[in-house]
Amino acid sequence: MLDVVTKLAQKNDKKIVMVVADGVGGLAKEPGGKTELETANCPHLDGLAKRGISGLMNTVAPGITPGSGPGHLGLFGYDPLQYLIGRGALEATGIGENLGPNDVAIRCNFCTLDADGNISDRRAGRIPTDESTSIVKILNEDVQIDGVEVRVLPVMEHRFVVIFTAEGLGGGVLDTDPQKTGVPPLDPQPVGDCPLNKNTAKIAKEFYSQAVKILKDQPKANGCTMRGFSKKPDMPTFEEAYGLKAGAIAVYPMYRGLASLVGMETVGSPKSLEEEVETLRDNWDDYDFFFLHWKYTDSRGEDGDFDAKVKMIEELDVLIPAIEALGPDVLIVTADHSTPAKLASHSWHPVPVTLVAEDARIDPVQKFDENAAICGGLGQFRAVELMTLALAHADKLAKYGA
Amino acid sequence: MLDVVTKLAQKNDKKIVMVVADGVGGLAKEPGGKTELETANCPHLDGLAKRGISGLMNTVAPGITPGSGPGHLGLFGYDPLQYLIGRGALEATGIGENLGPNDVAIRCNFCTLDADGNISDRRAGRIPTDESTSIVKILNEDVQIDGVEVRVLPVMEHRFVVIFTAEGLGGGVLDTDPQKTGVPPLDPQPVGDCPLNKNTAKIAKEFYSQAVKILKDQPKANGCTMRGFSKKPDMPTFEEAYGLKAGAIAVYPMYRGLASLVGMETVGSPKSLEEEVETLRDNWDDYDFFFLHWKYTDSRGEDGDFDAKVKMIEELDVLIPAIEALGPDVLIVTADHSTPAKLASHSWHPVPVTLVAEDARIDPVQKFDENAAICGGLGQFRAVELMTLALAHADKLAKYGA
Repeated sequence: MLDVVTKLAQKNDKKIVMVVADGVGGLAKEPGGKTELETANCPHLDGLAKRGISGLMNTVAPGITPGSGPGHLGLFGYDPLQYLIGRGALEATGIGENLGPNDVAIRCNFCTLDADGNISDRRAGRIPTDESTSIVKILNEDVQIDGVEVRVLPVMEHRFVVIFTAEGLGGGVLDTDPQKTGVPPLDPQPVGDCPLNKNTAKIAKEFYSQAVKILKDQPKANGCTMRGFSKKPDMPTFEEAYGLKAGAIAVYPMYRGLASLVGMETVGSPKSLEEEVETLRDNWDDYDFFFLHWKYTDSRGEDGDFDAKVKMIEELDVLIPAIEALGPDVLIVTADHSTPAKLASHSWHPVPVTLVAEDARIDPVQKFDENAAICGGLGQFRAVELMTLALAHADKLAKYGA
Repeated sequence: MLDVVTKLAQKNDKKIVMVVADGVGGLAKEPGGKTELETANCPHLDGLAKRGISGLMNTVAPGITPGSGPGHLGLFGYDPLQYLIGRGALEATGIGENLGPNDVAIRCNFCTLDADGNISDRRAGRIPTDESTSIVKILNEDVQIDGVEVRVLPVMEHRFVVIFTAEGLGGGVLDTDPQKTGVPPLDPQPVGDCPLNKNTAKIAKEFYSQAVKILKDQPKANGCTMRGFSKKPDMPTFEEAYGLKAGAIAVYPMYRGLASLVGMETVGSPKSLEEEVETLRDNWDDYDFFFLHWKYTDSRGEDGDFDAKVKMIEELDVLIPAIEALGPDVLIVTADHSTPAKLASHSWHPVPVTLVAEDARIDPVQKFDENAAICGGLGQFRAVELMTLALAHADKLAKYGA
């Protein structure tokens, strides 16, 4: 389908803004109650629903709870059942690293080894971040592997990222974490017979061998495990797929990273939603498509704090007029998944979506929420179709066939 | 999916009528207004919606604006993302030619060549149809290629069709139109290494070489370009796919041609909707399935004439009782795509569909229009599923599995 859309894509000067209120879909606290969106006072979001067309969207597929990676890939029009972002690549992306085609990223954990070389603590006592950061720095400076650029980067507590850069590396290497204590870390094993995977496994083995020598005097973090070996998925960029120059506006590095994986430029360094909207305004002329990410609806959902999530929805609502004032030709508000405060986690429940555009077929929906969206003109659909709809409403798709 | 349906298909004497009101889906002229269907006074179509089950349908996929070819293939149950009708085959079909398996069809343009053999006018001054028709006749008589039947057929103004008939011809040849003036037409180049394509390219080269000699004294049309080389797509017929003997009733050759591509017989030579319904009545006993095509809803939409399109809907409405009086076991009314007068072109907006049958699960929809259909029992679906629903409601599909 993406290939078909790519062939039909045509450029014009119309602008599309996709506002993603992370995890905004929710659940009522009790039967008969209201969801977070139904509870929130959001006249401007409701106004969009009145003037646009709405629907319910499964960002991956019905019943599937999306991680942030698959959720956003779906929104961006890349089928998350086809394109997978490996855990290493996602972790690297999450700390703001833009992976290139020769990079293999690995999520690593410091662990504690006993005198026999067996793992006694798989998380090295969850050592504090400042302590692990300085150990990571030593590894980054001291590990030297011929013909390979090795970067070792801190994440948090016992977690860090390793990136190998060289030509001819594959992402298919099995985790070295044995998932239990009392045994040593596993050797890095290549998947199948692919020589590219064998290259990576060999380098990982060398990395580990040098690392344990460098770490041998550390009281807790004297070993490590390596997981989620992965390369950047081989996806067309937004420019290649849609002919769109796309800008990503987000506070959190993870979402800036996800956007950059599909070739969006990250714009500005906003620290709040107000600053995100300012960034949008300041860069309005430079892009055809804007992805604007609002994190805190998800964060408060993850906290299980219903009322705080309602407040985060209302904070977004207040800024909708400022976004509309810029005159986007297509304005979409939706989410990458639901994060009901009741569950304090991502969930599989479909998310509401509203699209406002000159040639949208306006439906009777009057509110921006989960139940109102059921009777929306967009029906219930998979997020991977959203970009096609966005492009169509911006007159950016030619007719299919004569 | 088509293979599954084919395996389940079973014959009986029930009759299915699919009425296609071309481009009937529309848009309100202004926000808060009514679409063409909502504006029209169509008690009989509304009566079908009341007594049947409705839904909204994307003939290709959400956000995709269908051409007439893909739109109808979808309605006929052939996935238009899988089966493509090339431009040459569609143009030949549009002038009423039924392509066989050994035919390659090409849409050609007369062009004007200057003294150096470069194109000075890509459309030969849009010469009048009667003038080009007589030049086409000369080409048809004079071009002779060994072992190949060559037919040259007029279309309109500078446009004509060439059909090569021989065994071992492929449809993969690139356009010879350089898309600009000041350069000669391109040589016909085969796609890839396929010998079938090379055969066609060689014949096309010979055709062009003879044509420029024959045309050399023409003041305007002294050259030509060749585009959209294509064969009939390799699809099962209606009989093979569904076990249906199908008749097509349409005024325009294009739609008769599209129906014949899937093995329908074209019935009668109606010149109006009244004559189409008469044709249906006169041939009622001879077919299991009827495709009845009403063109003018699309034409008036293409004209951008909202009120005239409303009138065309009302003209269809008046004849619905005459169709119902024949007692179809399954009666479907829908469209191949939307053609909102507001846009004066085909569009991506989904089309309403209503199905009336003894065993339809009647839903609460009371009107035949875009917004009423949102809450229909058929939901929102891709047209490629419509034939399965038609067959099911006619008891023509066996149970799947035990």
